[in-house]
Amino acid sequence: VNNQSSLPLLHALQQCVARDHAPFYTPGHKRGRGSPDPLIGLLGSQVLRADLTELPDLDTLFAPTAAIQAAQALAAAAFGSDRTWFLVNGSTCGVMAAILATCAPGEKVILPRNCHQSAISGLILSGAMPVFVDPEYDANLDRVDGIPPAAIAAALQHNPDASAVLLVSPTYEGVCSDVGAIATLCHQQGIPLLVDEAHGAHFAFHPQLPTPALAAGADLAVQSTHKTLAAMTQAAMLHLQGNRVDPERIHKALTLVQSSSPSFVLLASLDAARWQMATQGQALLDHTLTLAERARSQLAQIPSLAVLSPAQARTPGFVALDPTRLTVTVSGLGIDGFTVDELLRQQGGVTAELPALQHLTFILSLGNTEADVERLLAAFRALPDQLAGQPESPPPPATWQCDVASRSSPPVLSPREAFFTPVTVVPVETAIARISAELVCPYPPGIPVLMPGEVVTEAAIAHLQRVLAAGGMLTGCADATLKTVRVVDNQP
Amino acid sequence: VNNQSSLPLLHALQQCVARDHAPFYTPGHKRGRGSPDPLIGLLGSQVLRADLTELPDLDTLFAPTAAIQAAQALAAAAFGSDRTWFLVNGSTCGVMAAILATCAPGEKVILPRNCHQSAISGLILSGAMPVFVDPEYDANLDRVDGIPPAAIAAALQHNPDASAVLLVSPTYEGVCSDVGAIATLCHQQGIPLLVDEAHGAHFAFHPQLPTPALAAGADLAVQSTHKTLAAMTQAAMLHLQGNRVDPERIHKALTLVQSSSPSFVLLASLDAARWQMATQGQALLDHTLTLAERARSQLAQIPSLAVLSPAQARTPGFVALDPTRLTVTVSGLGIDGFTVDELLRQQGGVTAELPALQHLTFILSLGNTEADVERLLAAFRALPDQLAGQPESPPPPATWQCDVASRSSPPVLSPREAFFTPVTVVPVETAIARISAELVCPYPPGIPVLMPGEVVTEAAIAHLQRVLAAGGMLTGCADATLKTVRVVDNQP
Repeated sequence: VNNQSSLPLLHALQQCVARDHAPFYTPGHKRGRGSPDPLIGLLGSQVLRADLTELPDLDTLFAPTAAIQAAQALAAAAFGSDRTWFLVNGSTCGVMAAILATCAPGEKVILPRNCHQSAISGLILSGAMPVFVDPEYDANLDRVDGIPPAAIAAALQHNPDASAVLLVSPTYEGVCSDVGAIATLCHQQGIPLLVDEAHGAHFAFHPQLPTPALAAGADLAVQSTHKTLAAMTQAAMLHLQGNRVDPERIHKALTLVQSSSPSFVLLASLDAARWQMATQGQALLDHTLTLAERARSQLAQIPSLAVLSPAQARTPGFVALDPTRLTVTVSGLGIDGFTVDELLRQQGGVTAELPALQHLTFILSLGNTEADVERLLAAFRALPDQLAGQPESPPPPATWQCDVASRSSPPVLSPREAFFTPVTVVPVETAIARISAELVCPYPPGIPVLMPGEVVTEAAIAHLQRVLAAGGMLTGCADATLKTVRVVDNQP
Repeated sequence: VNNQSSLPLLHALQQCVARDHAPFYTPGHKRGRGSPDPLIGLLGSQVLRADLTELPDLDTLFAPTAAIQAAQALAAAAFGSDRTWFLVNGSTCGVMAAILATCAPGEKVILPRNCHQSAISGLILSGAMPVFVDPEYDANLDRVDGIPPAAIAAALQHNPDASAVLLVSPTYEGVCSDVGAIATLCHQQGIPLLVDEAHGAHFAFHPQLPTPALAAGADLAVQSTHKTLAAMTQAAMLHLQGNRVDPERIHKALTLVQSSSPSFVLLASLDAARWQMATQGQALLDHTLTLAERARSQLAQIPSLAVLSPAQARTPGFVALDPTRLTVTVSGLGIDGFTVDELLRQQGGVTAELPALQHLTFILSLGNTEADVERLLAAFRALPDQLAGQPESPPPPATWQCDVASRSSPPVLSPREAFFTPVTVVPVETAIARISAELVCPYPPGIPVLMPGEVVTEAAIAHLQRVLAAGGMLTGCADATLKTVRVVDNQP
């Protein structure tokens, strides 16, 4: 029964909370009665009464037959999947399970070179071999976008034995790839398209938002229900449709990567987030879209600022923009995004999601108010005065893009082999021609130049040193100064 | 600075909550302002205000330099480790990380055949090869205890190339193995002892409790801080000492198995649980021990009941008992533990942690009160009347123990290989001599007879059918009736 106004899991938990009984089970605080005062002071006592795990009256996450099963079925209907799993270890565990369920050791998966860490973790745990494709990069605005279908087509052509394609869509900035075209390419080759849709859990609930991955034809989508909807942090969902991915394998993989003591507080928040969207989603998103539109148009009127807009979505790797994301380019102010982030936070009382060298990204959602937007606008309007007298940052170089030819190549070890192989730390000048044991990712543009298992080239090191010299930074590696590199220890 | 009365992480979160600012980051509910009413009704609004993830003012779980680092250092001092990691994916992820960090693919790990599912998951993800040892089994009382040091010594002698030993101590029933003797055996062979101490997080805080694994010489201990202390469900810790396990490998492994959006509600609860134990632990445990002692002695006076007591700890696989656990044998009532569990819950308002065929286990902790114990006693005293007129369950067989020789053997595939290999479902009579693709565990005694990757024997099937016929049950397998078995698909 698809009664979207019911809350089966939340109500089952509520009944457990209300039932008078003596608790001789975990957790140790026993419905908050043993909780320390400072924790009660921070969280309140109500949540502690509800902090329960798999009791006879509740259900079990790995073999649901009651409230969890009902809540997952309602979520499947609301989000447009054939089957949905609730996750308590974030989209991280969903992306890992998607790879574990579709790629046996040694099998190939096609994925963006700038995929999330969870996809690399999935490669390490599964033993799958990555075939990396490059995302589009807008060098003028220093923004990494989606994957053009042509890049997937080429990768599929060169790798007819690939087992799956994994996309990230939307990006942090709300940029969407052409999921429909890519799904068609995958299905022509008989393989599934898996989408890391962590930032797109709200797409299904308003016609002005980009098409959700499942509606576009993806076989599987992982969504951080906590990122844009009302679930609690760490609570996420995995959605499946069609028969290209075996639900039994998803189930088995999910039992590997999640706690056997799942928090029913997190699980109930997924039920509540689904209920909220199914019953009031469009109205709530109307409000968010109105706020976002006002913020976008007002920010664009502030001199020296530019805001990414849906009208800019017209390249093969950028077919739609989530209008609830605001990406504000600040390089026109003569200052970098990290400095702006500090000023907004310290002076303006505004906290962004993601600062970068040339821009900052802000997430608007159902929890934001007009007052938030006023504060955002006021903080940006005050910037020029706050910057008066400050030295200008040097203008960023025209492009940070690493020529593919200068990247470390080719892979010698799978990410899994590189993970388990002993490593050694060597001075950067002696790292050339050795196998990298670490990921080295320059910002900008946030596309890794070295991946574990790849051979370090002179051109790759030269590029990384240029990024550092120009004021960029390196992430993912143990030594962010690049004086040393961790390589595979190939001494006997 | 080891100021155990400070709460660095909880206070950092509190300051974030108190800071007036406009939130343009995840989670989508934005400090609870967009949370659905039913969720606020269940949990209160305070916890939602504190539901934050890695903000500039907070710290990052995978590279802590501020509040998390300080909180983990205090926990290390309080729990007696050299280094402690906070976990948001339960002891599950700690046990998996312990195996991933110490066993490369194909390497051997010695562990109990009845280890927790998380250890099997660790084998699957790492590709390590298990060397199973059998726990002690008390057939009269149908209780699986710990691992005798002699069993570890024999396994080490036959497997001098093993990379690690993993113990589970205490068991669910609070039974402790001789961790000190086993640590000595491991260290003589130069390998680490890893302890799944999920149920023993409280041991370090009272002299009347069993010796904690680290104090007994273990190299690593994983504790469910939520099970016996005041952390919230899913929040756990991994403790490390000495130099037999590389902390860098633990760190890398933990980043694979945990969300990149960790809940600071869960993390703050770990800080609070440490603070509570460090500042008031002995007094709180004095009270719990007094309650447990009263419950134990009173229950023992009820006709037909027997309660496991610390004095019974005198076999090589049972050297100490956690006195805060009550394991009550009910077979003297002529009825099984599952029926008693139902009666206690429905009629007595008492919920146990773990019912079994012949007994039930109850967890007492700092959250329990005298009223709870009174209720427990009253519920048990009322049982004989409630049972009057009910048919007696048939007396359980004298022993459920599976002769080792009749078990499925030998392993042909590693658990990892069996996980990734295609499976097929066959009628039980044709499963013999094929490779099992699933774990089949009879209760009692809760020691798996079939493991994925082992060859199915006629004796194993016969034993499992005897268990079913005698009223026991099978867990872990897809078909609990044993009409079919999942085996590796070795058809071409």
